[in-house]
Amino acid sequence: MTKDRLIYLPLGGAGEIGMNAYVYGWGPEGAERLILVDLGVTFPDMETTPGVDLILPDVSWLAERADRLEAIFITHAHEDHVGALGHLWPQLRAPVYARSFTGAHAMMKLEDAGQSGDAVTIVRPRPETVDAGPFRVQFVPVSHSIPESAALIIDTPGGRILHTGDFKLDGSPVVGERFDAEEWHRIAHEGDGIHVLVCDSTNVFQPHPGRSEATLAEPIRDLVAAQEGMVVATTFASNVARLKTLAEAGVAAGRSVCLLGRAMRKMVTTAVETGVLTDFPALVSPEEAAGIPRQNLMLIVTGSQGERRAASAQLSRGKYLGLEMKEGDSFLFSSKTIPGNEAGVIRVMNAYSEMGVDVIDDRDGLYHVSGHANRPDLEAVHELMKPAMILPMHGEHRHLREHARLAQAKGIASEVATNGTMVRLSGRKPEIVEYIDTGRTYLDGSVLIGAMDGVVRDRIRMALNGHVLVTLIVDEEDEPLGEAWVEVMGLPPRGKHGAALDETIESDLAEFLETVPGKIMADDDKLDEALRRIVRQVTMEEIGKRPEVTVVVSRLMPG
Amino acid sequence: MTKDRLIYLPLGGAGEIGMNAYVYGWGPEGAERLILVDLGVTFPDMETTPGVDLILPDVSWLAERADRLEAIFITHAHEDHVGALGHLWPQLRAPVYARSFTGAHAMMKLEDAGQSGDAVTIVRPRPETVDAGPFRVQFVPVSHSIPESAALIIDTPGGRILHTGDFKLDGSPVVGERFDAEEWHRIAHEGDGIHVLVCDSTNVFQPHPGRSEATLAEPIRDLVAAQEGMVVATTFASNVARLKTLAEAGVAAGRSVCLLGRAMRKMVTTAVETGVLTDFPALVSPEEAAGIPRQNLMLIVTGSQGERRAASAQLSRGKYLGLEMKEGDSFLFSSKTIPGNEAGVIRVMNAYSEMGVDVIDDRDGLYHVSGHANRPDLEAVHELMKPAMILPMHGEHRHLREHARLAQAKGIASEVATNGTMVRLSGRKPEIVEYIDTGRTYLDGSVLIGAMDGVVRDRIRMALNGHVLVTLIVDEEDEPLGEAWVEVMGLPPRGKHGAALDETIESDLAEFLETVPGKIMADDDKLDEALRRIVRQVTMEEIGKRPEVTVVVSRLMPG
Repeated sequence: MTKDRLIYLPLGGAGEIGMNAYVYGWGPEGAERLILVDLGVTFPDMETTPGVDLILPDVSWLAERADRLEAIFITHAHEDHVGALGHLWPQLRAPVYARSFTGAHAMMKLEDAGQSGDAVTIVRPRPETVDAGPFRVQFVPVSHSIPESAALIIDTPGGRILHTGDFKLDGSPVVGERFDAEEWHRIAHEGDGIHVLVCDSTNVFQPHPGRSEATLAEPIRDLVAAQEGMVVATTFASNVARLKTLAEAGVAAGRSVCLLGRAMRKMVTTAVETGVLTDFPALVSPEEAAGIPRQNLMLIVTGSQGERRAASAQLSRGKYLGLEMKEGDSFLFSSKTIPGNEAGVIRVMNAYSEMGVDVIDDRDGLYHVSGHANRPDLEAVHELMKPAMILPMHGEHRHLREHARLAQAKGIASEVATNGTMVRLSGRKPEIVEYIDTGRTYLDGSVLIGAMDGVVRDRIRMALNGHVLVTLIVDEEDEPLGEAWVEVMGLPPRGKHGAALDETIESDLAEFLETVPGKIMADDDKLDEALRRIVRQVTMEEIGKRPEVTVVVSRLMPG
Repeated sequence: MTKDRLIYLPLGGAGEIGMNAYVYGWGPEGAERLILVDLGVTFPDMETTPGVDLILPDVSWLAERADRLEAIFITHAHEDHVGALGHLWPQLRAPVYARSFTGAHAMMKLEDAGQSGDAVTIVRPRPETVDAGPFRVQFVPVSHSIPESAALIIDTPGGRILHTGDFKLDGSPVVGERFDAEEWHRIAHEGDGIHVLVCDSTNVFQPHPGRSEATLAEPIRDLVAAQEGMVVATTFASNVARLKTLAEAGVAAGRSVCLLGRAMRKMVTTAVETGVLTDFPALVSPEEAAGIPRQNLMLIVTGSQGERRAASAQLSRGKYLGLEMKEGDSFLFSSKTIPGNEAGVIRVMNAYSEMGVDVIDDRDGLYHVSGHANRPDLEAVHELMKPAMILPMHGEHRHLREHARLAQAKGIASEVATNGTMVRLSGRKPEIVEYIDTGRTYLDGSVLIGAMDGVVRDRIRMALNGHVLVTLIVDEEDEPLGEAWVEVMGLPPRGKHGAALDETIESDLAEFLETVPGKIMADDDKLDEALRRIVRQVTMEEIGKRPEVTVVVSRLMPG
């Protein structure tokens, strides 16, 4: 009989920031009972994933072992932790556990994807426990930039794992539970203490201790009070504490507050319904807001990342839901720009500048704090939890590597384990035992496709090179019937001598077809290749590009 | 007879950072004699301009008035100031004036585009003058992040204009001329003083005075000296002063220095040949470098923006020109990341992290200084030059607006004039007199196309939606000959029920063709539209996307 072992296998989130999905297993090699922590998405971009709707982890390894999967735990309701649940649950079909606000989102994700929300069981924080095969799991409240984030205590026959989820150390988080150092101390000293700390690494390069959400109240209140026109502020829709801080600043300045953006209204509603949000100021609807003098109005809107369809961008283009920004109004980004989103944010800023709206961003760090533990906070947690080993997660490679070094510098065993790296945790230090083929799955329209299927590669090629379509009819004697017909898409209409590009290609193809040997005409592959080669030569000559070419040869059959 | 007037018309660079092109005119309305200052490019991106090679200003307004264009002046050799010269000069055909290093680049730009470099005349700095119609122009050395940047004194019958070009105030710029406050004071006090200051706005939001290039020498020297493995550093190829600082730090640490990247070697060669660079340390070739122990080697490489083909990215992927980075080596970004380039830079950083290479970036501001004047520097220049009016240039709208406010706060008349805004400068304050249709021209392969031509829009659509091709042969009686043939590109191969998408579309088209009324079969447009509609319906149903559709109907003619 094989010896039982404890394993860790990130399928997403390790080596990137996004699409978190972490597998733990206990049992004999190859027959471990498994649990999954989080099942999130990453967002596509035009550069690498044009036309893709969402990027999900490739869970095929886990799907092939779904009979061994005991449960799925969701730490918090951010898209990069729960966004893939609806799309991938049908392949996994395990019970889902989460706290109430998070669970409400998990249910919505399942239902939005046409699944039943019944798979979700709501769990209260520790001391409540969930038994899932050999695992006993407790939810530990942590502060983050969304209500009700949780770390997980995962007790296994191989020792206690503390999986932090996303967290920061915040003594006064405005909404939700404060960081409770005594409780964490108890967690670290129960039984044999922490065997493995699996820990958020996002902010490992931030040298200063993180600041509390509560520190923002005064600067934001002062800022809003000092404005004369309408005030519009944006933050992440899910940052309910920030929404509260912003709304209270509006009320304190004698302004009516209106939320714009579906995601934001939904988030507040869910937070109120699940009891995590209380005392949120009264709101006015957009219709009511349109009738309120602008100096008495504050809008809190979606679109902190400059997203084209979000309220911030809509307002930057003109009237939106009856509301319009004007010279003398001000716009506050109570947020940071995620790398890669700069162009969109700057576009919105310049559009406001053209309107005469003053834009205030977080240049000075007064109006935004991060939801992740900074380097000194991570060090404090290492010290407090005294784990035998640390596995850095939730970060790009550079974050994981730096975090592992931080641990090693204090004599704690650590290892950089990126997506697909199976690590045995049963020994005294982490040991890489296997590399699993993993990757990304795309939600494309309504269909899931593999990132390596070539679909998106073809789109990128058409975007870079344009697309030429050649059709040719060949008769029963393998002779061309008429000339080849050419359609071009995404290419300059005229070549270097000013002639129409499609006609130039057609005329070169016609010349070729006049003298083409019968052997080529009779062979589909050779004919296709010959036509394609001519198209590329002509376009290179005429416009300096080699387009994608699709050739359709229709052969008339003897009737 | 109409009264003479002085006009200013930015065709690029005002309302954006990039593709600078500023027109000045003097004369009767509609018959002004003209000069152009700078003719630069902007770089395309996958999001908005996939497949485009370069973005150039639309100079058609000026091309239509080329007979009135007296001269083109180039302030410095950055691509956003000289990069479009070769491509657009054939439309303008005016003499080009520049200082020697800049002029050498201008000639290369002309020659690379198949023009003669003879159009370029090399000018020495003030007091040398160039007479161009009613304009008398002098080049005033300024410091920037490339050697030999110049401001222009443009003396006109309507007063003196000082066009700053890109500049900073640097008392010890390492390479090139230091900022000479006395000289600027003289310029401001000759004759009637400065009528208009047309001024760089890029760094108007930077609150602290700019630092000198010379402040970097010590931190970089200390950093390089402290490394044990190979040291690799990157900066902009054109920042010759930085190259010198980096190379000297390498030599001081007893390392052989090697430049990697064609652009960088060319820049240094030109700088030496034109005399702007002296005492540059001896270099070793990549072949020699491969034989030098890594602890004795320093590479200075292209690719500070994470460009895929540059040396930094090549090295992050493995061996390049016989050189390879290893654990224990270090990589220095002596540069800032231009907004929009974050993803590429982070990709390189993580690739190095995987290799075990330590990456040092400019987080702490020790290893890079900007080439542009910061807010207090701009205020100092306003104060020193005492212009009657200020026109902010070289900035996005938000920069221009902030700069105009800065001027107005000191009682100086100012106006935000973005691309296409013609401003009369003859009065006591700037007066907008006309809006010119302007925009962008794309170099696409070897052809110039208009940004609004729809070519790039089609590419973006194919990238987002995929492309379906339908071909159908119709016989002499307007009956379909066989079935419609479908090719898909950039779409998921299978629909929701697992059937091949192309076959599903073909079968729905076949069904339609069985019952289609003859009236539709006989009408090309109606048939095309009907086929297209079915394709979109089927794909929406099967994969949740509406693709681009190209329909080719071939009609057999009675033979």
